[in-house]
Amino acid sequence: MSSQAEVIARNARKAGNVLKVLSDEQRIFILHKIHDALKENAGAIKVANEVDLKVANETGIKPSLIKRLDLFKGDKFEIMLQGIQEIAELEDPVGKVLMARELDEGLTLYKVTAPVGVLLVIFESRPEVIANITALAIKSGNAGILKGGKESVNTFREMSRIINDCIEKYEPECHVPVNAVQLIETRQDVSDLLNQDDYIDLVVPRGSNALVKQIKNNTKIPVLGHADGICSVYVAKDADIEKAKRIVYDAKTNYPAGCNAMETLLINREAKNWEDVLTNLITKGDVTVHLSEDVKEAYLQKLQASNLLTDKIRSKIVLAEESDFYREFLSLDCAVKFVNSTEDAISHINQHSSKHTDSIITENEASANKFMRGIDSAGVYWNASTRFADGFRYGFGAEVGISTAKIHARGPVGLDGLVTYQYQMRGDGQIAGDYLGAGGKKAFVHKDLDINNIVL
Amino acid sequence: MSSQAEVIARNARKAGNVLKVLSDEQRIFILHKIHDALKENAGAIKVANEVDLKVANETGIKPSLIKRLDLFKGDKFEIMLQGIQEIAELEDPVGKVLMARELDEGLTLYKVTAPVGVLLVIFESRPEVIANITALAIKSGNAGILKGGKESVNTFREMSRIINDCIEKYEPECHVPVNAVQLIETRQDVSDLLNQDDYIDLVVPRGSNALVKQIKNNTKIPVLGHADGICSVYVAKDADIEKAKRIVYDAKTNYPAGCNAMETLLINREAKNWEDVLTNLITKGDVTVHLSEDVKEAYLQKLQASNLLTDKIRSKIVLAEESDFYREFLSLDCAVKFVNSTEDAISHINQHSSKHTDSIITENEASANKFMRGIDSAGVYWNASTRFADGFRYGFGAEVGISTAKIHARGPVGLDGLVTYQYQMRGDGQIAGDYLGAGGKKAFVHKDLDINNIVL
Repeated sequence: MSSQAEVIARNARKAGNVLKVLSDEQRIFILHKIHDALKENAGAIKVANEVDLKVANETGIKPSLIKRLDLFKGDKFEIMLQGIQEIAELEDPVGKVLMARELDEGLTLYKVTAPVGVLLVIFESRPEVIANITALAIKSGNAGILKGGKESVNTFREMSRIINDCIEKYEPECHVPVNAVQLIETRQDVSDLLNQDDYIDLVVPRGSNALVKQIKNNTKIPVLGHADGICSVYVAKDADIEKAKRIVYDAKTNYPAGCNAMETLLINREAKNWEDVLTNLITKGDVTVHLSEDVKEAYLQKLQASNLLTDKIRSKIVLAEESDFYREFLSLDCAVKFVNSTEDAISHINQHSSKHTDSIITENEASANKFMRGIDSAGVYWNASTRFADGFRYGFGAEVGISTAKIHARGPVGLDGLVTYQYQMRGDGQIAGDYLGAGGKKAFVHKDLDINNIVL
Repeated sequence: MSSQAEVIARNARKAGNVLKVLSDEQRIFILHKIHDALKENAGAIKVANEVDLKVANETGIKPSLIKRLDLFKGDKFEIMLQGIQEIAELEDPVGKVLMARELDEGLTLYKVTAPVGVLLVIFESRPEVIANITALAIKSGNAGILKGGKESVNTFREMSRIINDCIEKYEPECHVPVNAVQLIETRQDVSDLLNQDDYIDLVVPRGSNALVKQIKNNTKIPVLGHADGICSVYVAKDADIEKAKRIVYDAKTNYPAGCNAMETLLINREAKNWEDVLTNLITKGDVTVHLSEDVKEAYLQKLQASNLLTDKIRSKIVLAEESDFYREFLSLDCAVKFVNSTEDAISHINQHSSKHTDSIITENEASANKFMRGIDSAGVYWNASTRFADGFRYGFGAEVGISTAKIHARGPVGLDGLVTYQYQMRGDGQIAGDYLGAGGKKAFVHKDLDINNIVL
């Protein structure tokens, strides 16, 4: 007998097989209809959202979380609706020709993008995310199984009902299948689905690092996400210290809770006026610096020598523990260490970082190139803040998530993280046995064709 | 205390970090030196190989396997040496610019290929494979941990010694590190290494399907490989039956042990003269056809009506069981079934195939397009034999393996399956806080640059 999870997963696979062959127009059509349906049913969604808010208030949830649950605060609902339309109008990620090669006369090989298939997306309680993920999944031709945070269950249920009713209504017209988007509600459902690797192709957790870690440890399905964001900035010997001050300050303080915030600062002990970077962080940014012993000693010496050591600075200095260099503070804290060279910085980062984004500050191009080639992370920056690691800043139109995996999708992931590729071969009866290597005499031509001129 | 596996994996990671920054010239240099060293030490390798052959003969191994162990049979050794040089001279897979985008004046984002990092490659007993894999790993800037079949242990050990001595000798000159290639010898080592997901980025099993399955079930590291090759050919309603005969015959008989051989034949019951496809397979190809009940009945009727039913044909007909449609025969057998439409064929294949390669035979372009978009496999062919699914036939220069995974690398995989990408950002002190969305006023430009004009 099939488990409930298997039924959900199998239905998603079937829906995915239908979605895969639909045209961009059909996918755009349903996204606009979903937009309209959510807009028309704003009243019902608001009622459901109020139930969630009432429950949240009663159970004494933090005000910051309650603010996130409120879908109708300010223009959140309108922005959500607009987001669906924006995703609908993005360039079609499916069916793009990546390579075309003539193997022989009348025998041509094409490498073409195709949907991954079935996505299991797990996200937090912000109710607008369900619309965003629905749009991303359908636009990329994938079936989605969605699980949102339990605090918004009533809102999710209502929105999912509206979306599914809309898809069902227009199925005869545009063929987007009913099971294109399925909402699941319990954690048990999630853990059962994590075993459905025959049917589910990719898990996309968008939530806390603890959640991502737990999912990675409990599934054989590839996971698109990041469990940690331990980003480093390296102030090299030839750094322009004004740039270093600005970048380090931005990387740490612009949004400390972001996964692209700096957590570790590496300083070349020969960098001129490196102490200004720390003083700026502390006095302007209110950052607590966790200094390794030699940095602490040298910093205090410099400040005392120039009479700049204040009580405020003193209060913001902590002696770093080794574990601080593996730590994602997510707060106005950072770990600071001396290194002797770019090689040392590379070696420290490759050992300690989470392969997210790391930056070098230097005026020396050779050092910058060495750093960018040597660091094993998704993002390697030169004289720029790690905070740029973001799908919108990269110009992706939509962000699916940020990945610290090393294959498939790395760093900020746009719609192209939800597609893979297939090889299409178009022939006229050719058989391998006619060619060299398989018993025949014909040779292959292997002539690459200009992909800009190809319409399949 | 670190386990032996952890030490090996950590050393590989360190070596990988060094290899990552080497130039193509340095990688080419060492590959030619390895070529020379293996050539010069042919005598010692032959002695080791003879020990393996002697042991194999004594333990009564199958002659076909012994033939595979013999590295000096015919021109096998010379072809192996030539292969190293060919891989050395392939286009550098590392550092290719895939995308370049101006985010703002002086702030540019590049998507650049980079080595995956550390490969664990497990292969069979053919001794020449160690040279091939060494060349592929080094050329792509990856560190390799290699485990070959135990029947060739003496040959592997000798070749690995020669390769490592050579790398050590030239390390001062070209900086390819000693642990770039490490040979391991026992199955226990493999299973310990499969837990080292902190250090190993990709497992490449090149061997039996049982091996691949076992590895996939025992590691969280991504696996590049295929556990099954259940390829189908669909003879559609509008098939040119002469093409169908040729293609089906080639797909099944050209090399039945190949993973790209046809295992399932789907026939549209309205295809004209479909019975000729079966008769050709049986009489010319000596294939045993496992027919579903309705195909068997219809086929016998047709043959009796035209007086073509022979004892040979009768002897090659077997009634198919449902499990035959999930079966990789790897022999002169195939399962045959009627379907009513291209949709039915797609649905059967998406449910039963191993996502390797599937082909439609038809003169109707609309059906072909429907099939190619609908099938969820790495290769989707129109009027061509599934046997074309092969790295050399695709023009990849070298084949790393064939993948049935859905992400990272699909189908035949060339050197590009051993690289991933990184985002490089080159700036001049830019911070996120100056831009819209992060507290500032500046807007992003997001202007794509022509990647053909970029040298980093």
